Amino acid sequence: MGLIVQKFGGTSVSDDQRIFNVAKIVTKAYSQGNDVVVVVSAQGSTTDDLIAKARGINMHASKREMDVLLSSGEQISVSLLAIAIESMKFPVVSLLGWQAGFHTCLTYGSAKIEKVDSHRIKKELDKKNIVIVAGFQGINECSDITTMGRGGSDTSAVAIAAAMNADACRIYTDVEGVYTADPKIVKNAKKLNIIDYDEMLELSTLGAQVLNNRSVEMAKKYNVEVEVLSSMEDVPGTVVKEMKNVEKRAISGVAADNNIARITVTNIPDKPGFAFKLFSKLSANNIMVDVILQSHGKNNLNDISFTVTNDCLGDAVNILKKYTGNWENSEILYDENVSKVSIVGTGMETQVGIASKMFEALYEAQINIQMISTSEIKVSVLIDSSDTNLALNSIHDKFFR
Amino acid sequence: MGLIVQKFGGTSVSDDQRIFNVAKIVTKAYSQGNDVVVVVSAQGSTTDDLIAKARGINMHASKREMDVLLSSGEQISVSLLAIAIESMKFPVVSLLGWQAGFHTCLTYGSAKIEKVDSHRIKKELDKKNIVIVAGFQGINECSDITTMGRGGSDTSAVAIAAAMNADACRIYTDVEGVYTADPKIVKNAKKLNIIDYDEMLELSTLGAQVLNNRSVEMAKKYNVEVEVLSSMEDVPGTVVKEMKNVEKRAISGVAADNNIARITVTNIPDKPGFAFKLFSKLSANNIMVDVILQSHGKNNLNDISFTVTNDCLGDAVNILKKYTGNWENSEILYDENVSKVSIVGTGMETQVGIASKMFEALYEAQINIQMISTSEIKVSVLIDSSDTNLALNSIHDKFFR
Repeated sequence: MGLIVQKFGGTSVSDDQRIFNVAKIVTKAYSQGNDVVVVVSAQGSTTDDLIAKARGINMHASKREMDVLLSSGEQISVSLLAIAIESMKFPVVSLLGWQAGFHTCLTYGSAKIEKVDSHRIKKELDKKNIVIVAGFQGINECSDITTMGRGGSDTSAVAIAAAMNADACRIYTDVEGVYTADPKIVKNAKKLNIIDYDEMLELSTLGAQVLNNRSVEMAKKYNVEVEVLSSMEDVPGTVVKEMKNVEKRAISGVAADNNIARITVTNIPDKPGFAFKLFSKLSANNIMVDVILQSHGKNNLNDISFTVTNDCLGDAVNILKKYTGNWENSEILYDENVSKVSIVGTGMETQVGIASKMFEALYEAQINIQMISTSEIKVSVLIDSSDTNLALNSIHDKFFR
Repeated sequence: MGLIVQKFGGTSVSDDQRIFNVAKIVTKAYSQGNDVVVVVSAQGSTTDDLIAKARGINMHASKREMDVLLSSGEQISVSLLAIAIESMKFPVVSLLGWQAGFHTCLTYGSAKIEKVDSHRIKKELDKKNIVIVAGFQGINECSDITTMGRGGSDTSAVAIAAAMNADACRIYTDVEGVYTADPKIVKNAKKLNIIDYDEMLELSTLGAQVLNNRSVEMAKKYNVEVEVLSSMEDVPGTVVKEMKNVEKRAISGVAADNNIARITVTNIPDKPGFAFKLFSKLSANNIMVDVILQSHGKNNLNDISFTVTNDCLGDAVNILKKYTGNWENSEILYDENVSKVSIVGTGMETQVGIASKMFEALYEAQINIQMISTSEIKVSVLIDSSDTNLALNSIHDKFFR
């Protein structure tokens, strides 16, 4: 018995039947004597539908008005879930972001939670109500509605769990937990019982898409144990927490990111500052650069290669062309058919030979490595995107068989 | 130049094209140098769609949760209208009921406005913003969302106009104003330039359906002049205001109400209190009784006839059967095929012969009158519903030709 925070995504409440399935999970936890706070996202494609509706009227709608519009999505889902729970004769109340005390920064569209004032939630729990909270949304100091960006409901759930010192924070999804690889691609992928915050961060950045990144950062900051589990199957999921040394694995998982393109700028003058200015131009335009490789060429000229996300490629190339336009012989090359495959594990720091074992797997599969990047808990390689699935399977077999 | 409150109903914002039509009316008033506050209802059938959604889950959803659900409708329409106005490069901001300061009583589903705290609206007007306000919704002292019932947006608009002492309150509809009769039925119906609050109240009760009743009561109470006009045609509408004696007409309009049924209770014991108890039973069950007629019969027994709205008929009959069950020879008779036709005019009090002129028109059309009821500014007759259109035309011709 204690305080349980549960979070359900848009797919879990996309129709009446699924809403009742969620209602069952919620009321079961309540019937076991727990206080239950439930965070819900907008139903199914609601958010996308509303965005399309706005774009039909104005492609450049202000973020403030978009937040007013989009926050209606959770308003509908929380009330419908409450209405379903009412039909099962349980006491229940729904709260919107501003009612639940989500105070955010001023930034519309991607607001950060600054404080959760949980007094209204506590009041409702004291009345023995199940409390359904609209995720993804809050209120800023102008008394305006703000939204937290895609996946914001995960963050809402973790923030409540942190603010109220919850005994459990359960994120229900359409998978059973976090796997050593994407089970759709790697047949032998295994569900992990636990995973470290840092590993989870690397994996979500790399496209595992189970938990929103900011929610993991927040969970780490406030040391909230988060369980990722299925809303369809009643089986244990994966607990995201700070792992002790003894629990650490060399490798926790293998992930691929296809939404990536490689850019190469050739013949950069070999003088201090040129490369720096190149990247500062990109960052000034909000273009994030990942894996970077610089090679020293002939005649004191350098080639530099790096990756950007696919949707930034066009902008990045245009910016670079402008900047390098008057350099002699310099060219901008790019390739969209690349993929970044990574292994992640907090135990990596204390074990040798992890990276070479990965390269060995790729060699055995005859896959060419274009670029390599490493951090304390990660090794990433850039390969041809047609090799992605083969690479994932080869590397996974090497480490987990 | 001054402060103008405009209100647009759900039909006026039902699609992108109509939203832009509204945006044009709004920005025109703003361009003329006015402060503009716009009250908007939910788009087209949104409210009905949301009600259907809730009923699919639970036929007995709480009114509190229904209010959370339904208020999302105006949230969508205000943001879309703001987004349209943004595309026309005007400064604009949307506000929900709780942001716009609509404080209501506790009653969910049919909340009454207790106070409009207009400081946020004023702040936005000071910044030279066009302010788009969600109608129909407010906040109660529990910090819960409340809605005001059907037609509540009219009341929202009048409440703002009253609280802010607006220079004009314009209710845009799909008709050009208030007519002497329903133009769909009476070909010669004429648009009125002005109409008195009391006449408007009688006419909206009688089914003219141009303005919500509570909004007219509020306009009368705070002496707000309300103009009803078309959102499609740029022509003057009808001004609802307190008419001076010199302006008063014997008859302002003729209206019919078909949503009505006649009940007759026969052979009521002729002793004090029996009729009173009969009506108190009905009112205890929230059944409103209109036109009442008591006739004195033989053997000290009375018949009593009255009307109720059609949807209350079943309940009313059941209640009456229970109550009269042990009376000798008493019967409950009812007829749904009746219609109430009324003439309304504040000048009626000072002119004689108005009622008899109405009866003459009905006699000439060979229409039988079942019951008659009069007030200071109204004469109503109950007739067979198949005679409704003929009656409207005959009476209208008599007075307005």
